[in-house]
Amino acid sequence: MIKTDILIIGAGPTGLFAVFEAGLLQLKCHLIDALPQAGGQCAEIYPKKPIYDIPGFPEVLAGDLVDNLMEQIKPFQPGFTLGERAETIEKLEDGSFIVTTNKGTKHHAPIVAIAGGLGSFEPRKPLLENLEKYEDNGVAYMIKEPEIYRGKKVLIAGGGDSALDWSIFLADVAKEVTLVHRRNEFRGALDSVEKVQQLKNEGKINLMTPAEVVALKGKDQLEKVTVKNTTTSKETDVVVDNFIPLFGLSPKLGPIAKWGLEIEKNAIKVNNSLDYQTNIPGIYAIGDVNTYPGKLKLILCGFHEATLMCQSAYQKIYPDKKYVMKYTTVGGVTGFDGSKKEAPKAVVKAID
Amino acid sequence: MIKTDILIIGAGPTGLFAVFEAGLLQLKCHLIDALPQAGGQCAEIYPKKPIYDIPGFPEVLAGDLVDNLMEQIKPFQPGFTLGERAETIEKLEDGSFIVTTNKGTKHHAPIVAIAGGLGSFEPRKPLLENLEKYEDNGVAYMIKEPEIYRGKKVLIAGGGDSALDWSIFLADVAKEVTLVHRRNEFRGALDSVEKVQQLKNEGKINLMTPAEVVALKGKDQLEKVTVKNTTTSKETDVVVDNFIPLFGLSPKLGPIAKWGLEIEKNAIKVNNSLDYQTNIPGIYAIGDVNTYPGKLKLILCGFHEATLMCQSAYQKIYPDKKYVMKYTTVGGVTGFDGSKKEAPKAVVKAID
Repeated sequence: MIKTDILIIGAGPTGLFAVFEAGLLQLKCHLIDALPQAGGQCAEIYPKKPIYDIPGFPEVLAGDLVDNLMEQIKPFQPGFTLGERAETIEKLEDGSFIVTTNKGTKHHAPIVAIAGGLGSFEPRKPLLENLEKYEDNGVAYMIKEPEIYRGKKVLIAGGGDSALDWSIFLADVAKEVTLVHRRNEFRGALDSVEKVQQLKNEGKINLMTPAEVVALKGKDQLEKVTVKNTTTSKETDVVVDNFIPLFGLSPKLGPIAKWGLEIEKNAIKVNNSLDYQTNIPGIYAIGDVNTYPGKLKLILCGFHEATLMCQSAYQKIYPDKKYVMKYTTVGGVTGFDGSKKEAPKAVVKAID
Repeated sequence: MIKTDILIIGAGPTGLFAVFEAGLLQLKCHLIDALPQAGGQCAEIYPKKPIYDIPGFPEVLAGDLVDNLMEQIKPFQPGFTLGERAETIEKLEDGSFIVTTNKGTKHHAPIVAIAGGLGSFEPRKPLLENLEKYEDNGVAYMIKEPEIYRGKKVLIAGGGDSALDWSIFLADVAKEVTLVHRRNEFRGALDSVEKVQQLKNEGKINLMTPAEVVALKGKDQLEKVTVKNTTTSKETDVVVDNFIPLFGLSPKLGPIAKWGLEIEKNAIKVNNSLDYQTNIPGIYAIGDVNTYPGKLKLILCGFHEATLMCQSAYQKIYPDKKYVMKYTTVGGVTGFDGSKKEAPKAVVKAID
């Protein structure tokens, strides 16, 4: 059982910054995220895209923003349960919560802050018979560890950046890479498209367009994929070890929707006039996952909501303590790791 | 008469960021500030101090944060009325406002956003007879243009960073610099204290401690300052052109307190459950100047409040238009100066 002060569900920018504000109050945080790394959409969907509306950054790449936040919260040593989805919540008699993931990992905390963004990102799956049968037996929707494809015959489907970039990457790792797309045109960064063209010309990527995968074959393990040319309707069986359809991720509120929280338009209603708490005392919702009158789904709003949530959480955890806010410019930042950052102190010194 | 969409009172970080969010909505802003430059406290009081709780900045000097914000809002060409204090407000029949400064500059706008921080910073003045008589006739409380002291005999009073830093700076500009402080000990950055010691040793700064100024003399213009040694009680007349007491700045809500706004604990009450509007429709208060249940006087909270204020202001200015928010990552930033910042577009390109 993992124990913490504030259990944060969702490790996007809002959830990450909550760690910092909680840390200033000497509260420990642990984060759960369905994605294999921290950063949420910023890291998974658009790490190389610039954001222009983060205050103080005329321009910042989403991935760099995440790196900066990770650096900022480092002194407060957050724990992470990554690649697992928060599935169930149980309220104990003392008012604290146990949250269990889809892989059975249990977390115990007096405060739960849902910073789930648009929800957990689930891959869009192709409509194919027997698809589930081959999941974990040759079919995957995300590439977590590229090394497992070393020496394998891999077939990727898709026409966007993920399909292009992973085809390029695996061309050097896998024994054989086949890229299938239902059109001749690909949509992605110019240099990615050009690189795939080059690798195709060199025979390092086997390109099948306009085409789609129509059947999967194999006893227990995937053995063959049937690809149909959509112009000629001709079908070809390709011998493969792995089939990786990369059709994008689609956010789903998921199991959280069944936790008894008030939901409106696929978002969690919170009390924005005070502390962004939900209808269940002790559970907060911050960032894109919440809704209230005038809500804007902006990262900078999530930062504010996270900060007010932490103050309220502190009062719940320590009802008898009175917290006096100190500005970081005055009080510095003292990490749980013993680190201390502070402004150079003024000296008091006689001049004679 | 200066005309704008949103008239912002206070050019600190919150007021500056409001320009950006307004700009995304194609609304123009003009800012009034009593200080001679933009940036508020960050620029005037602690430009060289690090802030640790701006999201995405593990550490940022207050002055650099202001520079970054100025760069970020540049495409939206804000107007500035600096060195003037917003004094009176008049509501016209059409609901718009005219705000007049202490120097008589008039501004007209449908929306007023008060981002006044802790108030306008007023210098702490020494208790001296005839002090007002010499204001603008030899006595000043802030140094706006150091060049006017070239070749002059200047007496500075104070024991903090301002007194130290300006004594050092003017030692190269003025004909004579005298520094008076009521103690032998100075409080400031180590290298500033050491530099003053060195300049004193070289005879470039005339140091009088422990001492205080007890009288001002001169017909219309200041001619002499009487300095009393607080140990020996001996009084000395020093011939000077200028007397600059640097005893710090003290924030005062000032004339805004008389605008008919609901005030609580020296701050302006706002509706935090919607848009940070005050009790007077069309006047908003954002950042440290406002108060509501759970209010935290943090820069990052001001950023959020400024953003929601702008959305509400847009609805007031264009009640019939429906604004659909576009993420800057998707839509980019189009400046009033014709500039355009945007993420590199994906190409759609055939691979053959």
